[in-house]
Amino acid sequence: MEYKPYIHNAKYYETDQMAIVHHSNYIRWFEEARIDWMNQIGIDFREVEQRGIVVPVVSVHCEYKNMTHFGDDVAITVKLKQYNGVRFVFSYQVRNALTGELNAVGETQHCFLKDNRVGNLRRAAPDLHGLFLAQLD
Amino acid sequence: MEYKPYIHNAKYYETDQMAIVHHSNYIRWFEEARIDWMNQIGIDFREVEQRGIVVPVVSVHCEYKNMTHFGDDVAITVKLKQYNGVRFVFSYQVRNALTGELNAVGETQHCFLKDNRVGNLRRAAPDLHGLFLAQLD
Amino acid sequence: MEYKPYIHNAKYYETDQMAIVHHSNYIRWFEEARIDWMNQIGIDFREVEQRGIVVPVVSVHCEYKNMTHFGDDVAITVKLKQYNGVRFVFSYQVRNALTGELNAVGETQHCFLKDNRVGNLRRAAPDLHGLFLAQLD
Amino acid sequence: MEYKPYIHNAKYYETDQMAIVHHSNYIRWFEEARIDWMNQIGIDFREVEQRGIVVPVVSVHCEYKNMTHFGDDVAITVKLKQYNGVRFVFSYQVRNALTGELNAVGETQHCFLKDNRVGNLRRAAPDLHGLFLAQLD
Repeated sequence: MEYKPYIHNAKYYETDQMAIVHHSNYIRWFEEARIDWMNQIGIDFREVEQRGIVVPVVSVHCEYKNMTHFGDDVAITVKLKQYNGVRFVFSYQVRNALTGELNAVGETQHCFLKDNRVGNLRRAAPDLHGLFLAQLD
Repeated sequence: MEYKPYIHNAKYYETDQMAIVHHSNYIRWFEEARIDWMNQIGIDFREVEQRGIVVPVVSVHCEYKNMTHFGDDVAITVKLKQYNGVRFVFSYQVRNALTGELNAVGETQHCFLKDNRVGNLRRAAPDLHGLFLAQLD
Repeated sequence: MEYKPYIHNAKYYETDQMAIVHHSNYIRWFEEARIDWMNQIGIDFREVEQRGIVVPVVSVHCEYKNMTHFGDDVAITVKLKQYNGVRFVFSYQVRNALTGELNAVGETQHCFLKDNRVGNLRRAAPDLHGLFLAQLD
Repeated sequence: MEYKPYIHNAKYYETDQMAIVHHSNYIRWFEEARIDWMNQIGIDFREVEQRGIVVPVVSVHCEYKNMTHFGDDVAITVKLKQYNGVRFVFSYQVRNALTGELNAVGETQHCFLKDNRVGNLRRAAPDLHGLFLAQLD
């Protein structure tokens, strides 16, 4: 499947006094982008949570290559790198949407909680499990 | 009762590219300061929510007088301006803790929700009602 | 002139433990919406700042009518209520884009700084002055 | 030298609808903690920037071990792991200040910009260079 990159327009309130987007916001953009990616494969994250499935972040990593400025459009591509029902890993590329310049790359790891316990999506939600599996290369 | 002002040290990530604290953060500081004020009168806001009482913000107002910069300590004084069991109003003064200069004044209005319905704290939590009442001039 | 409302999709990271969008984010949405509004009348806010003109917020006001939840699209309409070259006032309506329900109304006041001094846009930037004037009813 | 851990009280506005502190805030806490660490070794970060030295973040990494809740005090310990005048690496431990439980570990990498070019602190600011060097094991 072909995924559309997620477009985010850098906000004034996301800048800091270095006059660039504060580095913590990229972590938030990763979240925006993976929720959008889920939407694209047919998963509404609101429904996931309504089914009692919570998806905590286990780790984040981000490498900053070039600065993002107020008003820049960034295009974020998301890739499901690993998935086994219990843990999954997304990777991200943040590019200036106009120039294509690579501003950042990153990765997030996640697990699933069902009723506050770590669970396997294969049992907890076979339909979602199937959708995730189908996105692996 | 004498309340201690709440001290907040302005964070780097709270600045924007004007090289001052972004105006939206004062609204967050008001929240920090009123939760601290509640602590001072003996109310742990975590316990309030555990009792099923939710305290939404009905309105906020803030007037910006002087800029706050990264690293500045601000001293925020909170005053319970109105309270009738159903609605209450806090007012705030944000001062540079070093110079005493007034950086902002503001006001927030709140109501109480018990089981998702607007309620009267006098019935929902007579102990909290008493504590709030005692803070009025 | 007819302005398009500004659409914002409520982010997961904008929610708080009341499971609604935290009230401080509306102040940030006002900023997003007025920068978009300026774009619509032909003003790129990045260029404004590059010309040495800074536009601080003098006051904000927001009344919360209905809650916004994660994933909701809100449509924000902006109106230039007052403008005299020295100060200007914007008003905002935040509606659920799907249902039309009114989630919040608000207002922000601003002034202009040129070389760190309060100035009159009529002299500092006649072209921008003209554009703003033309938006008054 | 013995450094005092940096204490941060988790704010209501830092929570999300999972009713825990949103993971992006830990990246902000790392920043708070390393600025405090610099203060402890005699470096005022405001003066660093006033001398034209900018310290961008090159990468961040965070592993989440246990959740932080609203009202929790966390104690963040900072360690200068590597430093060579050009790049430096900090590591972080975030613990519940009450229970000692480890909530997160992380790392950030930084470089120095002087007049917008990557530089060596040894030449750009020998005094700061000395202070950093002295903190290595």
